[in-house]
Amino acid sequence: MRLRGRDGAVGQFEAAPAVPPERVCVAVIVNLETGRDKQPDALERLTQLVRDDLDRVNELILQHMQSPVALIPQLAGHIIAAGGKRLRPVLTLAAARLCGHPGTRAAGLAACVEFIHTATLLHDDVVDESDLRRGSASANVLWGNKASVLVGDFLFSRAFQLMVADGSLRILEILCGASAKIAEGEVLQLMTSNDTATTEQAYLEVIKGKTAILFSAACEVGAVLADRPKREQDALASFGLNLGIAFQLIDDALDYSAKQEALGKKIGDDFREGKITLPVILAFLRGDETEREFWRRTLERQEQTDADLAEAQRLIAKHNALSDTVQRASHYGAMARDALGIFPDSADKRALIEVVDFCIRRGH
Amino acid sequence: MRLRGRDGAVGQFEAAPAVPPERVCVAVIVNLETGRDKQPDALERLTQLVRDDLDRVNELILQHMQSPVALIPQLAGHIIAAGGKRLRPVLTLAAARLCGHPGTRAAGLAACVEFIHTATLLHDDVVDESDLRRGSASANVLWGNKASVLVGDFLFSRAFQLMVADGSLRILEILCGASAKIAEGEVLQLMTSNDTATTEQAYLEVIKGKTAILFSAACEVGAVLADRPKREQDALASFGLNLGIAFQLIDDALDYSAKQEALGKKIGDDFREGKITLPVILAFLRGDETEREFWRRTLERQEQTDADLAEAQRLIAKHNALSDTVQRASHYGAMARDALGIFPDSADKRALIEVVDFCIRRGH
Repeated sequence: MRLRGRDGAVGQFEAAPAVPPERVCVAVIVNLETGRDKQPDALERLTQLVRDDLDRVNELILQHMQSPVALIPQLAGHIIAAGGKRLRPVLTLAAARLCGHPGTRAAGLAACVEFIHTATLLHDDVVDESDLRRGSASANVLWGNKASVLVGDFLFSRAFQLMVADGSLRILEILCGASAKIAEGEVLQLMTSNDTATTEQAYLEVIKGKTAILFSAACEVGAVLADRPKREQDALASFGLNLGIAFQLIDDALDYSAKQEALGKKIGDDFREGKITLPVILAFLRGDETEREFWRRTLERQEQTDADLAEAQRLIAKHNALSDTVQRASHYGAMARDALGIFPDSADKRALIEVVDFCIRRGH
Repeated sequence: MRLRGRDGAVGQFEAAPAVPPERVCVAVIVNLETGRDKQPDALERLTQLVRDDLDRVNELILQHMQSPVALIPQLAGHIIAAGGKRLRPVLTLAAARLCGHPGTRAAGLAACVEFIHTATLLHDDVVDESDLRRGSASANVLWGNKASVLVGDFLFSRAFQLMVADGSLRILEILCGASAKIAEGEVLQLMTSNDTATTEQAYLEVIKGKTAILFSAACEVGAVLADRPKREQDALASFGLNLGIAFQLIDDALDYSAKQEALGKKIGDDFREGKITLPVILAFLRGDETEREFWRRTLERQEQTDADLAEAQRLIAKHNALSDTVQRASHYGAMARDALGIFPDSADKRALIEVVDFCIRRGH
């Protein structure tokens, strides 16, 4: 069966016939802001630069999610087809290009990074009791929590198999270390969830674990496989870490954004789940006792009425907590950009830097 | 803090003070039949042979389950302290000894095998909605499903870190492949659960995945790290696979055993959970339509009364399904024994073979 992304055929798929084609179609075009801007955005431009390798990544993903146990490609296909931005594999491919890596190893490792990401998404949705993932019913709703846990384990193992096939112990070390840190970050998030006393520092540790560590590893791997000196490996690791922090901060800001709401996007998911994110932490710290009681009632005790999201937005706006979250993100964005300072100018470098700017701009 | 097993101090523990010592004590003496037999059984004798290395394994386990996120050593300590038989690490150590491996690498890999096992136990208890694990409240009951899923992911990642630290790509390949197959087996079990039409063949695939594959990998690793020829690696892999199948078959038989019941052991867990195991498959295949309807009601539709377990035992006895399950186990036990045929006689070989006999004898 040939699969088509928006741009045409993207890979060969050898699924069991039980898998409906719409579930396994792998989108290649990456767009964080579909419909808002007709010009290709910075992420689309970066994706174009690594187009051929990304096609290979998608082929590898389809190949390696196969199993004689039919439920596995069905469920994995659902979450992988749900699209997402393929941002992490694109970063691995772009980092490898920046480092002048000519080989094909990057595709295997980029697929591996995406598998780790997908496995954590499956487990996250179980832990967060989410019903939706990128606008579609989440896998735990369609197939149950049990299947989501186990297929997550399967994809996690597949990720490690892809790494072992690559054969670099240094890269295994980076990605296994990242996986352990991701799990630590998730447990930390679980422990701080619904706790309005969470500090900005603790929150930073959480988002490092849930987002930035994998961004960092995805980028670092690009330099390692190109066999570049340690300072370039460190530079790309730092680029990824700071980009990841900025990316997550903006994501957290967008969930309270009136502008997003005006564009017809769904907001307030974090609020309804009682997630403690930076906009809330800042509003809580800057608020008076009455306001703090509002946050405790709505987020800690999860006693919410229909009017509460608007009130949360009002308090966040009153204390400039949204614009200051974007400000904080800009700081990490600047660190990401500067981390690439040691690399000479190139189209790849410019494209990576534009992605940082683009990620921050989403927040304005 | 010094920890004591039944035989005295077993390792240094650097836990957060929040962890009560009784939760992290690592038992070293291994006994499948505590109280039934005063003589050290075959598993205890095998354990004695690898005593020093096993102490090192327990130290490594305690060391590597640490994390600044306090919940992780608490929860991991609970399930690891719950003891269990340490059968898998003992197999790795014994296989390495059989192959004349003099080094200390076996301990690290044995710890890694135990981490994989523990991670799957945590996820299994979530998937099976178990309340008890080896007589204690299970981690999912004490800390919730979410924490169990995430700490399982953490231990899984730690297992891979231990492998990477060892540095053998061949061993990484074996253990990553085993992990993927375990996850496949678990998904298969989920799909066949409560399905009385499960064939013996499908059931065998399930128990290969849930038990035998890790036994196999645990043993194979011993030969690989001793750098023995492929035929010895294959022999130990086959020994482990067949021992694992036999072990699980006996476990499944014991859950319906009147003798176990007479010894005051809890039986009927599989029945209450609607698990389809070989005693049931044989009784179903050999039963008439009325009997099949009994199995469908109790296991598929999960409509059970207090009298049903006794009736299940009666039907299983009527069709010799228990003794034939033990018979099947003996077949795999014989294959396991014969797989070691290429190794010259030694105390290690005799001890391994006695463990096979011991595992089967539990079923009589």
